[in-house]
Amino acid sequence: MTLEGTLVDDAVRVGGDARQRFHDSRGYGRPTGGREIALSYVEAAHLLFRGDLDAVSGMDFRDFFVRATREHARFGLRFLVYTDLRDRGFYLSPARPDWPGPDAPDADFAVFPRGKGPADGAIEHRVRVLGERESVPAADLAESVLAVVDEESEITYLEVTEPALDGSAEYDLPGGVPGVLLEDRVLCWEDATELHEAGFYGQPLAGRHSVVEDAVQLSLVEAASLAAAGVLDLGSDGYDAVVERGRAVEGERFDRRLRTYAELRERGLVPKTGFKFGADFRTYADFDGVDSLGHSEHLVRVVPRDHAFAPRDVSLDVRLAVGVRKRMVFALADANGETDWLSVGRLTP
Amino acid sequence: MTLEGTLVDDAVRVGGDARQRFHDSRGYGRPTGGREIALSYVEAAHLLFRGDLDAVSGMDFRDFFVRATREHARFGLRFLVYTDLRDRGFYLSPARPDWPGPDAPDADFAVFPRGKGPADGAIEHRVRVLGERESVPAADLAESVLAVVDEESEITYLEVTEPALDGSAEYDLPGGVPGVLLEDRVLCWEDATELHEAGFYGQPLAGRHSVVEDAVQLSLVEAASLAAAGVLDLGSDGYDAVVERGRAVEGERFDRRLRTYAELRERGLVPKTGFKFGADFRTYADFDGVDSLGHSEHLVRVVPRDHAFAPRDVSLDVRLAVGVRKRMVFALADANGETDWLSVGRLTP
Repeated sequence: MTLEGTLVDDAVRVGGDARQRFHDSRGYGRPTGGREIALSYVEAAHLLFRGDLDAVSGMDFRDFFVRATREHARFGLRFLVYTDLRDRGFYLSPARPDWPGPDAPDADFAVFPRGKGPADGAIEHRVRVLGERESVPAADLAESVLAVVDEESEITYLEVTEPALDGSAEYDLPGGVPGVLLEDRVLCWEDATELHEAGFYGQPLAGRHSVVEDAVQLSLVEAASLAAAGVLDLGSDGYDAVVERGRAVEGERFDRRLRTYAELRERGLVPKTGFKFGADFRTYADFDGVDSLGHSEHLVRVVPRDHAFAPRDVSLDVRLAVGVRKRMVFALADANGETDWLSVGRLTP
Repeated sequence: MTLEGTLVDDAVRVGGDARQRFHDSRGYGRPTGGREIALSYVEAAHLLFRGDLDAVSGMDFRDFFVRATREHARFGLRFLVYTDLRDRGFYLSPARPDWPGPDAPDADFAVFPRGKGPADGAIEHRVRVLGERESVPAADLAESVLAVVDEESEITYLEVTEPALDGSAEYDLPGGVPGVLLEDRVLCWEDATELHEAGFYGQPLAGRHSVVEDAVQLSLVEAASLAAAGVLDLGSDGYDAVVERGRAVEGERFDRRLRTYAELRERGLVPKTGFKFGADFRTYADFDGVDSLGHSEHLVRVVPRDHAFAPRDVSLDVRLAVGVRKRMVFALADANGETDWLSVGRLTP
């Protein structure tokens, strides 16, 4: 006995035992009221792909797939992700306005907890399908899963969450440490050792054999932050001169990074440069002096609030962070106002 | 007895036993003809820093360092790198036109082989000093070492070499495999299994349970390359249609990537997407069929020939490549003409 669906408007209607067989027991489609169910294109394509459905209005899988791809933008991408998640044992539904929980208007699929279906009222993941060449604005990324389909049709899942950025660093800083602004750093010739050892500010200027003992070099971000707090005394230069120098060498980015740096310190974290990892900062949550330095847990990249993320760049950042056992965090920062934080990790659903 | 140098033009002259003590036995400065030697600023600063020299025209290390930094751009960066390499046991000289070997006009230092000095006629590394915010044009990168000083004064050494990109992949491809261009990929419904298995082209469209057996999806780069070789038959669409689609989705970048892809194949390598590593391609040198797939050795990022590399981006790419035991390669490509290749790795001098 062959089972065939019918194209009606933008859905595929199937009768017979489809409601019991596909919807009730396996979470495909939506009941229409009667014995029929309405399948979305991607659901119908998947049932054709599996051989559970024999045809849709006379089309086999191949014909239906070509037609759907030509009529619906990103159909091919969505089909690949839908199939992959089904293969991983999940039930999932195309996005609908009546989902339980918070709004995720740009999501493509609601993935239900393992063993659960659309009728159980819970959603495990809101999945947004993305081709590797499609950028996604920062504002659209909150609390979702990105399924990025690369050009060779492999899928990478990235989970976006709100990071827990809380540290326990406590230290007292001296006041009035003299420093001199030189090119794109500040040199403290004396009295700055405590800054380094207690607060992990700066980097000693030391050689293996040297008569210079207490000199500490500060980055412009560190220096601006310490000058603002009254810890650093730059003589005729001051906070403004440091910020001006910062803007001269890296433009507005300096203000965003300074803002982010200050917020990380306020949260009890100790940020240091993330240059070796291609990031702005790495952060230590349980800092208790440079002599007992542990593992840094986060890599932080600072981006403008209206930044559009290219999936390939995110893939690069996250892959690197995983490799060095850190969590990738993006700081969406303006010069003024609160910073928003996004934590992005790989997900194996 | 104190030893003091004198500022003369742009050098520091030192007499006494300086020639024997600093030049002959430790590779500092240049003989001036008499018993004196002439030190560059960075050499003089280092001798002051070590306490080997007591003053230069009345200035101690601190005064001399501040003056040199204010008078010579990037002096602070060069001093940090010079000191670091000295601490690692190397003799090195500031760049001079009369170096042995090929020209490296933008290098800052000639680093001599361990245990050797300027008089021995051999150079181990040509080092270019770079602040983390200074970009460097691709054309300036051939066969050199970059010493990147990050904002916190830590140094990362990156070695640029010419990569050995030679593979042993051999395979026969069928002809006239039918395919259909759908959005940003090509689907071959039949006859493409061999393309995948023998040449690692494309990705099967397969689910765990599926009636579709032989379908293979090709990326636009793969499809254009196979269409050009007569392997792929796209019906009314052809090579031009694929290239046009490629340009529509990624602009000129498509031409550069296609050119690079073709050259990698010509060299006997098998390129596949590098998306999971944030790169354009990963490559297999000893490919002998998908069933015995080994480790991919290179990550390739394609950039325009006039690309300016930001040190932080290079640091990110190289750090990731090291973490996954691959070598980072940059392809400097135009749509036409030969591609130039740069291999970049971390160096611990």
